[in-house]
Amino acid sequence: MSNNPSFVLQGIENVSFEERPIPTIKDDEVLVEVKKTGICGSDVHYLVHGRIGDFIVEKPMVLGHESAGVVSKVGAKVKHLKAGDRVAMEPGATCRVCDACKHGRYELCPDIVFAATPPYDGTLARYYPIPGDLCYKLPDHLTLEDGAMMEPLSVGVHSVANIGGLRAGQNVVVFGAGPVGLLCMAVAKALGAARVIAVDIVQSRLDFAKNYAASDVYLPPSFNKGETKIQYSERNAKTMREQLGITERGLGSIDLVIDASGAEVSIQTGVFIAKHGGTFVQVGMGAPEITFPITTMLVKEIDFKGSFRYGPGDYALSVSLVSQGRIDLKPLITHRFSFDQAVEAFATNRAGKSADGKGVIKAIISGPDVSVDDL
Amino acid sequence: MSNNPSFVLQGIENVSFEERPIPTIKDDEVLVEVKKTGICGSDVHYLVHGRIGDFIVEKPMVLGHESAGVVSKVGAKVKHLKAGDRVAMEPGATCRVCDACKHGRYELCPDIVFAATPPYDGTLARYYPIPGDLCYKLPDHLTLEDGAMMEPLSVGVHSVANIGGLRAGQNVVVFGAGPVGLLCMAVAKALGAARVIAVDIVQSRLDFAKNYAASDVYLPPSFNKGETKIQYSERNAKTMREQLGITERGLGSIDLVIDASGAEVSIQTGVFIAKHGGTFVQVGMGAPEITFPITTMLVKEIDFKGSFRYGPGDYALSVSLVSQGRIDLKPLITHRFSFDQAVEAFATNRAGKSADGKGVIKAIISGPDVSVDDL
Amino acid sequence: MSNNPSFVLQGIENVSFEERPIPTIKDDEVLVEVKKTGICGSDVHYLVHGRIGDFIVEKPMVLGHESAGVVSKVGAKVKHLKAGDRVAMEPGATCRVCDACKHGRYELCPDIVFAATPPYDGTLARYYPIPGDLCYKLPDHLTLEDGAMMEPLSVGVHSVANIGGLRAGQNVVVFGAGPVGLLCMAVAKALGAARVIAVDIVQSRLDFAKNYAASDVYLPPSFNKGETKIQYSERNAKTMREQLGITERGLGSIDLVIDASGAEVSIQTGVFIAKHGGTFVQVGMGAPEITFPITTMLVKEIDFKGSFRYGPGDYALSVSLVSQGRIDLKPLITHRFSFDQAVEAFATNRAGKSADGKGVIKAIISGPDVSVDDL
Amino acid sequence: MSNNPSFVLQGIENVSFEERPIPTIKDDEVLVEVKKTGICGSDVHYLVHGRIGDFIVEKPMVLGHESAGVVSKVGAKVKHLKAGDRVAMEPGATCRVCDACKHGRYELCPDIVFAATPPYDGTLARYYPIPGDLCYKLPDHLTLEDGAMMEPLSVGVHSVANIGGLRAGQNVVVFGAGPVGLLCMAVAKALGAARVIAVDIVQSRLDFAKNYAASDVYLPPSFNKGETKIQYSERNAKTMREQLGITERGLGSIDLVIDASGAEVSIQTGVFIAKHGGTFVQVGMGAPEITFPITTMLVKEIDFKGSFRYGPGDYALSVSLVSQGRIDLKPLITHRFSFDQAVEAFATNRAGKSADGKGVIKAIISGPDVSVDDL
Repeated sequence: MSNNPSFVLQGIENVSFEERPIPTIKDDEVLVEVKKTGICGSDVHYLVHGRIGDFIVEKPMVLGHESAGVVSKVGAKVKHLKAGDRVAMEPGATCRVCDACKHGRYELCPDIVFAATPPYDGTLARYYPIPGDLCYKLPDHLTLEDGAMMEPLSVGVHSVANIGGLRAGQNVVVFGAGPVGLLCMAVAKALGAARVIAVDIVQSRLDFAKNYAASDVYLPPSFNKGETKIQYSERNAKTMREQLGITERGLGSIDLVIDASGAEVSIQTGVFIAKHGGTFVQVGMGAPEITFPITTMLVKEIDFKGSFRYGPGDYALSVSLVSQGRIDLKPLITHRFSFDQAVEAFATNRAGKSADGKGVIKAIISGPDVSVDDL
Repeated sequence: MSNNPSFVLQGIENVSFEERPIPTIKDDEVLVEVKKTGICGSDVHYLVHGRIGDFIVEKPMVLGHESAGVVSKVGAKVKHLKAGDRVAMEPGATCRVCDACKHGRYELCPDIVFAATPPYDGTLARYYPIPGDLCYKLPDHLTLEDGAMMEPLSVGVHSVANIGGLRAGQNVVVFGAGPVGLLCMAVAKALGAARVIAVDIVQSRLDFAKNYAASDVYLPPSFNKGETKIQYSERNAKTMREQLGITERGLGSIDLVIDASGAEVSIQTGVFIAKHGGTFVQVGMGAPEITFPITTMLVKEIDFKGSFRYGPGDYALSVSLVSQGRIDLKPLITHRFSFDQAVEAFATNRAGKSADGKGVIKAIISGPDVSVDDL
Repeated sequence: MSNNPSFVLQGIENVSFEERPIPTIKDDEVLVEVKKTGICGSDVHYLVHGRIGDFIVEKPMVLGHESAGVVSKVGAKVKHLKAGDRVAMEPGATCRVCDACKHGRYELCPDIVFAATPPYDGTLARYYPIPGDLCYKLPDHLTLEDGAMMEPLSVGVHSVANIGGLRAGQNVVVFGAGPVGLLCMAVAKALGAARVIAVDIVQSRLDFAKNYAASDVYLPPSFNKGETKIQYSERNAKTMREQLGITERGLGSIDLVIDASGAEVSIQTGVFIAKHGGTFVQVGMGAPEITFPITTMLVKEIDFKGSFRYGPGDYALSVSLVSQGRIDLKPLITHRFSFDQAVEAFATNRAGKSADGKGVIKAIISGPDVSVDDL
Repeated sequence: MSNNPSFVLQGIENVSFEERPIPTIKDDEVLVEVKKTGICGSDVHYLVHGRIGDFIVEKPMVLGHESAGVVSKVGAKVKHLKAGDRVAMEPGATCRVCDACKHGRYELCPDIVFAATPPYDGTLARYYPIPGDLCYKLPDHLTLEDGAMMEPLSVGVHSVANIGGLRAGQNVVVFGAGPVGLLCMAVAKALGAARVIAVDIVQSRLDFAKNYAASDVYLPPSFNKGETKIQYSERNAKTMREQLGITERGLGSIDLVIDASGAEVSIQTGVFIAKHGGTFVQVGMGAPEITFPITTMLVKEIDFKGSFRYGPGDYALSVSLVSQGRIDLKPLITHRFSFDQAVEAFATNRAGKSADGKGVIKAIISGPDVSVDDL
């Protein structure tokens, strides 16, 4: 039966609405009626470039992977869900058999079926089939928009709590005050960080960060003439130390750096600003190669770690932190679109602001059967 | 009283023998008659350049820090040693009060008094005063030369066991088959690594490594015309995979990479060859900055860590592994000099081989009162 | 010079005020004018029994170890403090040389000089000499009473954050709602625990806990006739599960149990209520031996850990959590006494309540020169 | 088709041979022709008692779970195996969906299908169906008997390497020199333990242990008249210290205790002999409750952990350690039986020795189609 309107990427700069068959589900799956979906930078990237690294869009693909919805059908083996349950949907179904899956790091599973990563369809449709254990029931006081936001929040949780191993009382610097950076700050604050310092090159983003979850903000200076990036970064770290009273070690030093910018000078500055024995988590993706101050990193015994998507426990912790009121996702949702406004939604996201000049942090597209006002 | 012949770096390319006063000791110290001292690359570096990074030789400094000797005097508070004990000497005395010292990472102490790191004198003298707890008693079946070798071995132990966290059954690649690289291989083998793969650009070093502690060796290819370093490194990793049957994940993949070379292409190749979720330890020092494949590192969630000197427990483990016969240090000692041949010893070390063409791995200088043949 | 009024335990049930000499300090020490000191169960235990385990009071000993004060003199080597600084005082000075000290677990130092643990004098005096690094500067918005409370809070921090390794989103049960139990709850809440369940046999304590830091409380049932302790505990855990909706595994299960009661049935119940793979921290001291359900513990792979005093970082985290407003210590201070009321303070503490019937959580004795009303 | 001879427990003390249908396999499974199966204490326990704890034999059940064999059929999704491959068989198939499975601790999966644990059939049959990822290919130089022994070895690997976290250079005590205890010793030695001390009450077992993997052995004394178990254990630990030169802390102290005996006095002695800050792993199962010296455990901050079966990576490490020659399993196989001698094999195992008086460590039953002499 074909009753499943879907928003499909046909090729570069080419999207359309299609009626697709309603998916069937396996015994361990549920069928979810998708209600809210956030637009992610990767969705836009596929639209514009048709690929991300080795992932190439070679056939039409439904977009979207930051979603929440209502359970419509339940497979025979799924015991913790019933039709009508409101759920956040973790969009990566892993093989459960490989070494990574068995050792508690399923984010590294090579056979992951990830929504809207080619060749797999995404969630911008009426229905999406998903393994039951990847659906997280939302408490009544959380909205479906909150549910959709669990996806980017889990990226932050993975970086800060899981990979970064943040402990209460630590001082954290987050480079980049986009959606992921802001959520990293929110997680750091929720977990008891003493200081959460936001760094960005756009003052208005810093203003938002300060109101949202940062204890301090820092706007880097311009380049001096003839300065190399490394020279700039070393000076930048020094200035930052002075402005914010950051020490090199012990109390007052930076225990954890999160780079959510992917910018070369942010990464370099991060290595210079971290304390001896500190941790650095790279979650922002930028240029494939950068100039890296390796001797500084060695002498300080920095633990420099990559953070990719999210792993076991991350979604559950996201739901828990929002449920407890330790993180508020609502201020991040700046734009809302109905399903048939999906093209406009993507355009707005690419522009970074809507016609009225309001900057986009997160834009949410409602499902085919949902009002934009029904959160 | 002045009865303490010492080998002193006066300035760049300028060394001499001096009679110095016999040091007095504090209650928590012992005075050691130094019997055997290995020459380290850093000693040679100070001789040639007068500095390493920010550490600048500004006044005459006794060289040497890889030493063992016999306890001569014992401070009132030192209970586990007596005159006549043969000991390996850990050459860094830390403040014991700072955050790093109190949290079990004293290698990061900013106030460390490290032998032959300016402005502190080293151990190439008859006597050296040292905190009692930094002296490790040698079992009877170990030689004083073994004792001196505990210093570079501890660098390997720190990298592989402590920072690298090697577990039995893992596959390890070590880049660089110099003294530290060879000792890293020896530690990896002793700890139960399944494969220990040595990589070096000199075939004779690989031959030595294979006889010593490596299960496999790999000689990288030459550069192709017009190839960037990153392109080369990616190809290098691919070739290595094919030649040695290395997989990308799971059984047969590389769990741990140790770079003991400091070479840019080694580091790059290491990132490409490590498994998803693998660990990379940087112990070799080279150029201060390198081009680093950061997206690969992120997507694979590699844990990239700096390893600097050695920390709590490393010296003790070194002594234990050699005492148990799990590591044999003797094959590494290629050249021996008497105290008054110290100048020749340094010249040989710089040349990398002696007049007879024999390559230097480790050259040992005996103390003023010791025969070269008395090991 | 003798100008140091001190409150001295002469022997069992025998205390008196003495004038003692003003202590001299070493280069790495400061002299603190003690302003506020909390009474701990151990102080009372020494008063009543003259010993705790192998620690026997064999000569007069100043009591008190939960203190804060104002720096009066500063040793030459102490750089981060000056006269007039208000500080919390960590009362255990460790040797800094033993294996435990060097590996970041100084709470296990056998040569610790701990205030008011025989044979070492405590802090209930005008002056107390203490290593500078054990003094933690109080921010202006914290009181000296807050400073004194950092000691029991650090016991909670050590148990919950350090030994227990609590991560945000976990469910915690704390047995015992005395001062340490309450502080464990406060720490768990501050670190992002999803549920903090208080268990105690006194309803009024549970009421306090609920208002203070617990999300849920549980009053255990009485024993059935003929029931063994193990049978009781198994039933108790079952009842607790049902009443509070606790599951055996996964979401809704108990990740961490803290026993701050020392009671045999609490410990047994704790093993039965913990999830498979959960952690159990024993911080309360009671009978030296108990009946322990070891097969259950094995099959569930529970990680059962002892927590003793506090180690590196615990005091700093305590100060940080209170400074940030994540923990409020004020509600716990129920009784205040001047220095010359010390005898009455101890009597009140032993009675568990003051003449007006108000139960004691924490009683604070002011220093000789401080008004009770000056917090 | 019924061509699958099986050795079936019908009820208490009641076994028989049955022809059963050849199992069909799912896409992710393989069918293995079982060639060698070790008898485990649990098999005997089901035979004698019909139950272990809550696991009750309520219908006929094939016995056996320590097996190796040859792959006969391969499911469509299994890529790393082909018919004819010789494999060790991990006998617990887990759900892969629960919290434990997803967090890398599948040994705690509540829905595990474990061979010869009611109600699931075991491996003492011609054919056994098993998920492909639970089959570990044996290198050519390993025997199928080695393959069967991977099961008890994995119990040792889990206890010592995974739960115990043994690091090279540590001193280990293992209580109980039965099959699991001996394998724990072998693992400890293979991983670089400095001392491996075997404790048992039977001298001949200690003699075997000393020849096999222990560096030292200790035979506990008899009870004194009127002595409680705790008093005995405290004295026992003291005697052990003196006889073996064991210190309380630092070098020479016991870092890790493994109890593979389940005996109350062993556990108590273990707590007394462990160093401050040491780890204790309980792998032996005995009485469900014991008297436990909890104050000692608290004050020493011992980390007391349960170890149950084996988890991710344990089987792979077992195969690796044996393949590398670091562990030799052959000396442990004392008795061999053909498939039709299974009743005699169980009788011998219960008796603890064969008619010729030779003590049983491990008895192996061959598959229906295998000669006893074909290892």
